[in-house]
Amino acid sequence: MAMEVDHGDHQAKDYEDPPPALFLDRKELRLWSFYRAIIAEFVATLLFLYITISTVIGNQKNIANCQGVGPLGIAWAFGGMIFVLVYCTAGISGGHINPAVTFALFLARKVSLPRAIMYILAQCVGAMCGVALVDWFQKASYVSGGGGVNTVQKGYSKTAALATEILGTFVLVYTVFSATDPKRKARDSHVPVLAPLPIGFAVFMVHLATIPITGTGINPARSFGPAIVYGRKQPLKDQWIFWLGPLVGATAAAAYHQYVLRAAGIKALRSFRSQSNTTQ
Amino acid sequence: MAMEVDHGDHQAKDYEDPPPALFLDRKELRLWSFYRAIIAEFVATLLFLYITISTVIGNQKNIANCQGVGPLGIAWAFGGMIFVLVYCTAGISGGHINPAVTFALFLARKVSLPRAIMYILAQCVGAMCGVALVDWFQKASYVSGGGGVNTVQKGYSKTAALATEILGTFVLVYTVFSATDPKRKARDSHVPVLAPLPIGFAVFMVHLATIPITGTGINPARSFGPAIVYGRKQPLKDQWIFWLGPLVGATAAAAYHQYVLRAAGIKALRSFRSQSNTTQ
Amino acid sequence: MAMEVDHGDHQAKDYEDPPPALFLDRKELRLWSFYRAIIAEFVATLLFLYITISTVIGNQKNIANCQGVGPLGIAWAFGGMIFVLVYCTAGISGGHINPAVTFALFLARKVSLPRAIMYILAQCVGAMCGVALVDWFQKASYVSGGGGVNTVQKGYSKTAALATEILGTFVLVYTVFSATDPKRKARDSHVPVLAPLPIGFAVFMVHLATIPITGTGINPARSFGPAIVYGRKQPLKDQWIFWLGPLVGATAAAAYHQYVLRAAGIKALRSFRSQSNTTQ
Amino acid sequence: MAMEVDHGDHQAKDYEDPPPALFLDRKELRLWSFYRAIIAEFVATLLFLYITISTVIGNQKNIANCQGVGPLGIAWAFGGMIFVLVYCTAGISGGHINPAVTFALFLARKVSLPRAIMYILAQCVGAMCGVALVDWFQKASYVSGGGGVNTVQKGYSKTAALATEILGTFVLVYTVFSATDPKRKARDSHVPVLAPLPIGFAVFMVHLATIPITGTGINPARSFGPAIVYGRKQPLKDQWIFWLGPLVGATAAAAYHQYVLRAAGIKALRSFRSQSNTTQ
Repeated sequence: MAMEVDHGDHQAKDYEDPPPALFLDRKELRLWSFYRAIIAEFVATLLFLYITISTVIGNQKNIANCQGVGPLGIAWAFGGMIFVLVYCTAGISGGHINPAVTFALFLARKVSLPRAIMYILAQCVGAMCGVALVDWFQKASYVSGGGGVNTVQKGYSKTAALATEILGTFVLVYTVFSATDPKRKARDSHVPVLAPLPIGFAVFMVHLATIPITGTGINPARSFGPAIVYGRKQPLKDQWIFWLGPLVGATAAAAYHQYVLRAAGIKALRSFRSQSNTTQ
Repeated sequence: MAMEVDHGDHQAKDYEDPPPALFLDRKELRLWSFYRAIIAEFVATLLFLYITISTVIGNQKNIANCQGVGPLGIAWAFGGMIFVLVYCTAGISGGHINPAVTFALFLARKVSLPRAIMYILAQCVGAMCGVALVDWFQKASYVSGGGGVNTVQKGYSKTAALATEILGTFVLVYTVFSATDPKRKARDSHVPVLAPLPIGFAVFMVHLATIPITGTGINPARSFGPAIVYGRKQPLKDQWIFWLGPLVGATAAAAYHQYVLRAAGIKALRSFRSQSNTTQ
Repeated sequence: MAMEVDHGDHQAKDYEDPPPALFLDRKELRLWSFYRAIIAEFVATLLFLYITISTVIGNQKNIANCQGVGPLGIAWAFGGMIFVLVYCTAGISGGHINPAVTFALFLARKVSLPRAIMYILAQCVGAMCGVALVDWFQKASYVSGGGGVNTVQKGYSKTAALATEILGTFVLVYTVFSATDPKRKARDSHVPVLAPLPIGFAVFMVHLATIPITGTGINPARSFGPAIVYGRKQPLKDQWIFWLGPLVGATAAAAYHQYVLRAAGIKALRSFRSQSNTTQ
Repeated sequence: MAMEVDHGDHQAKDYEDPPPALFLDRKELRLWSFYRAIIAEFVATLLFLYITISTVIGNQKNIANCQGVGPLGIAWAFGGMIFVLVYCTAGISGGHINPAVTFALFLARKVSLPRAIMYILAQCVGAMCGVALVDWFQKASYVSGGGGVNTVQKGYSKTAALATEILGTFVLVYTVFSATDPKRKARDSHVPVLAPLPIGFAVFMVHLATIPITGTGINPARSFGPAIVYGRKQPLKDQWIFWLGPLVGATAAAAYHQYVLRAAGIKALRSFRSQSNTTQ
């Protein structure tokens, strides 16, 4: 089948893709804004875990008297905090607050390797600190409440849990890419860009669906912090699921966005062909 | 009664209706953007069913210990996912994710016939795949949880169920038309165009009201996928209600928007009359 | 105390108040847009009552098995529908869907008297039709579920109920005036104008607070429709509370906005004084 | 390590910080807009407490029959009302409705000292009046429902409660500063400025997490009003926690924003150094 070119591609483009981030940008390391971004990621992930794990523990404590917020309230806590924190930190660090998001944006050449590594470290340390605060403020409840860890819930296989994490992270990272696509700014305004709200809602949705299966990770820092602070065996043994799943899901979403929705592959092919034609 | 013309119509129009889509647009079939749109509808409907039916099944599993998300959480899952997915796919495919919406936009000449057919196919296949994933990830719970199907609930007649589906789809499609009306972009900005949010809320609202009656369809793909995957007799027998109802509701909403709110009929009449006057 | 003039008032105004609506605008009656607006109010109020009263009845039916949406879901239904419907009808009729709002906007000279009367009639008839549909679709449940009427709940005096309705409507109408103030469009953009969302949230909030007291009216059409269709004595006897309360609350909010926040009184006084000064 | 300057700082700034508010602005005291702002803060805090404490009391009353809104509904009431009221009053008074927010904005030189004092007074008196209305409308329920006060809940130490209030207020005030940063308006539009929504959500989130610990203050006026009206010993004895905590949290958030995110300290240092270089 002769595939004709898309009109949209031959028109003068009304948007500009920012240049891809350098793989290793040494100048970046000398900028205050780089360290400020790392601090912002640390603080945001700390606050994220502090609020969400407090909600989980508070709910556990009040199940008996029916005055917990329930899984709906927990899902709101995760989704709502991501909305608030992405809104607050987007202009400082890009508002990742999640190693899987950082990894996807690294793959898409939106952040450099040192920045990605530093962000992920900051997120993991921030998550541990946030959970440590919950542990410190409400010692007894924290332990009896199960520590807010992610584990494979009874009745589900490790494969199902891994697949659940992959798909859940796909939903999140797909939303992140769609919401921050530079094409959006240029396109006609019937879908204005209010990126943090759909991103927060994506997190909320995935929690509604998958809390019963894995407790919902889709964010390795969120899984890592409680596993370390709680220190029991099972969450640590399951840890690989909550890193592998999100990283695979993030990769798939990045590939879907780049190669299908943005059609980078087809464009590359076309550009190659038109060069061949020209040189013949 | 002598009906005077509306001022707003005689002023220079400050907006432009896009030209109606061709009934059959052969050139469209050769564009990559056409196939990309179909893929996007397939993926979006898959994710929609995966997340929402997982939520339904997870709730069923946790009713006993009061730790399900309840019908409020289920309503949020359906409405929230539509918000997220319409936001993400609007620029790629228009963000239908629902055969009734595609049908209404076909009636309104916003999409061509082949596009409408391909979208509806993609949505139905996507829905089946999404439910198949739920079935695969949580086999036992999926079956015991009732498969997430739409059926007429006990105590309601088929007529009531059909009427419920008609009215529910009317609310959704009326919101879709209102939110994407090109007039909105031009009108004074006190109602800015953030289309996906009210569309998602419309879905949320209809679920709050009609889950107890039909489980809420208002989207034939959503009803079709679980009926096929679950494979029990009743949901398949009731299937016609979840196609006829939404299609009738969508037609009614399209007609209301075109002939009453946009007053296409009156304008046509007026235009005819003024021509007669001129030629006399 | 010598009250100096406000800087903001002496600068060239960067916004324009639309001219006050004529008390009786005969030309308006000959425009199609006038009748279209009335139809839109009728349809919107019909859909509003249909969805919200269905939610109330569905919840009643499922209290026993803990699978109702609860008062939180009911509050969402009322608030969310107002968000959706105001969004959809704002450009057609102004999106009142509530006689108290129409009355307040009439007092503020935003709508003419015939328009106000016709809107209120359309809202009341629409409300009756919406409830009649609920009654028709789910006969038995509608009656056993209490008909979705507003009455003074046990343990509360009529005075408390009236005061509750006054204050609740004040919150709603105050939000309506704030959100649609032409000053907003001109002012610096840190509070952009997304009017239907805060208006919907105001309705949601008042329901959370006052469902236990009166079932929450703050909208005479919402109270009127079910009272008529259900036809029991008590709701009809309490009807005056659900008209007087909202109308008083709406008047208070209109006065607060005009005379305190917009300082119409002080400006009139100042204008009088400066005229005196000039003529001396 | 030689810290290079940030590019963003040397470019022509595309935004402007408003000049810092005078510590004592005598002219302000003669403007009607000053008193109007105080009235708006009074009314908004009155409505805030009226709606939220009604929700708390109504929930207490309906716990038994499972028809309360639950802690999720209560959290929505607090967060949703802040969204609505910040939206409505932002253009009149800046929309504080919370002494901790006013204090933080005073520290950041956004409001003068007399304005800060008058706002805080207006907020505390407004809060008392709002709770007094709840007490008046539903006497018996108000007392039996515990008066909607903030106290340290059983099982938590005063230190934990204080730390909880500090961190909760940090989340809120950090969001307030992020959302109203003048830099946002200028920056590329992928995070548009819809300030009241994330601020309301921040309040919602903190309530989900900390209702089980302190009932959630993070707003000294909200804690003060019910303590006075209810008049029991414990809430009055715990009062210091609900003033000290929020004020410390607000100070920390203001410092974080000014000295880390806006890097005021580093800029001052740099400016000093570059002056030294020039003068050498």
